[in-house]
Amino acid sequence: MKELQESVLQFARDRDWEKFHSPKNLSMALAVEASELMEIFQWLTESQSRELDAATRQKAAEELADVFLYCLLLADKLDIELLNAAKSKMQKNALNYPADEVRGSARKYHEYSKAP
Amino acid sequence: MKELQESVLQFARDRDWEKFHSPKNLSMALAVEASELMEIFQWLTESQSRELDAATRQKAAEELADVFLYCLLLADKLDIELLNAAKSKMQKNALNYPADEVRGSARKYHEYSKAP
Amino acid sequence: MKELQESVLQFARDRDWEKFHSPKNLSMALAVEASELMEIFQWLTESQSRELDAATRQKAAEELADVFLYCLLLADKLDIELLNAAKSKMQKNALNYPADEVRGSARKYHEYSKAP
Amino acid sequence: MKELQESVLQFARDRDWEKFHSPKNLSMALAVEASELMEIFQWLTESQSRELDAATRQKAAEELADVFLYCLLLADKLDIELLNAAKSKMQKNALNYPADEVRGSARKYHEYSKAP
Repeated sequence: MKELQESVLQFARDRDWEKFHSPKNLSMALAVEASELMEIFQWLTESQSRELDAATRQKAAEELADVFLYCLLLADKLDIELLNAAKSKMQKNALNYPADEVRGSARKYHEYSKAP
Repeated sequence: MKELQESVLQFARDRDWEKFHSPKNLSMALAVEASELMEIFQWLTESQSRELDAATRQKAAEELADVFLYCLLLADKLDIELLNAAKSKMQKNALNYPADEVRGSARKYHEYSKAP
Repeated sequence: MKELQESVLQFARDRDWEKFHSPKNLSMALAVEASELMEIFQWLTESQSRELDAATRQKAAEELADVFLYCLLLADKLDIELLNAAKSKMQKNALNYPADEVRGSARKYHEYSKAP
Repeated sequence: MKELQESVLQFARDRDWEKFHSPKNLSMALAVEASELMEIFQWLTESQSRELDAATRQKAAEELADVFLYCLLLADKLDIELLNAAKSKMQKNALNYPADEVRGSARKYHEYSKAP
């Protein structure tokens, strides 16, 4: 992952595109890519979304890749170690939402996904 | 990263939350988290976004972590190997946007970031 | 609608908040509000989303109102007459997607919703 | 506005596209359109976003029109009277954020824009 991050940074440097990469702009680009990924699914049923044909799945893979690449760029600019940040967030979530208390609850899941 | 992915999958299984995790729903959750990350920056100038105070940076780290965790969940559901998908996308980008031809161009960068 | 637009502009002027209202920032705020609206529906089935309880429907009304208010602010900043712009877009859509040719097609609808 | 709403509903009925229009799906489409609008501004500075050329402004007008049309569709499905909902929200905002107390404050504005 470090290697990939270095290579996407180098890609931007080689093209002199780093000047566009303020955290503000990168957060917009990340949201735009996440929305392009979502667009694939917007008129599908949940059930259809579980059974993509090969071409659609490939398109989803590319959009998800774009989201991930912007995550790596933004993490670099904010000096965040992404894997560590994700591990810490997981631990915080596990403490705040003990399995025994929230099992199967859509309400609790909604609360979880809304939590800061 | 594999380990982290397994642990976020286990987190959902332990809480019986996997039933909510259709690719359609996960793509929505990913977009919502990306938007929450962007919200941090919406009224900041680009320059302010480069100089976050510690509390805001910590909040950004947590939101970015959430985006990444949903990437891992969605990659699992779509059977996408995220690192490989990102590497392939990087190579495709490098071919389509040769450094020598696009250097420093905002127009080319916009075209790049819009490409499917 | 003109009256409402004037009143939301006055609201911002009274608070000296217009300085934050560059079109770039307003487009971010609009996307953030649209995402907050979507968050209400993210873990609901399509069927559940058609049968909201009163409290959830009220929350949706407020989020939709926020989206609309940012539309009015952005239209003002870009000097766009929103009703006219929407009527023109409708006419363009009707020409590009004749009812007889696209009836009932999810593929055509997806193409329509992706068109620039 | 009533007339425009009726005409966009008729547009969908004529094409047998209403079956795709669950509130959940419409909220996704609205977010996708808001993101397409934002994409226009993502690599522009705030200052550039205030001075669009004619072609870019026209593109923004069309994307904003799409956002507004989905607002009208969603308002119909949720049985929300959009103008009234927006007026009520304005009044609520005015009560919660008195001009004298919040003038010019980015912090207060951020709090305002985050409020449910």
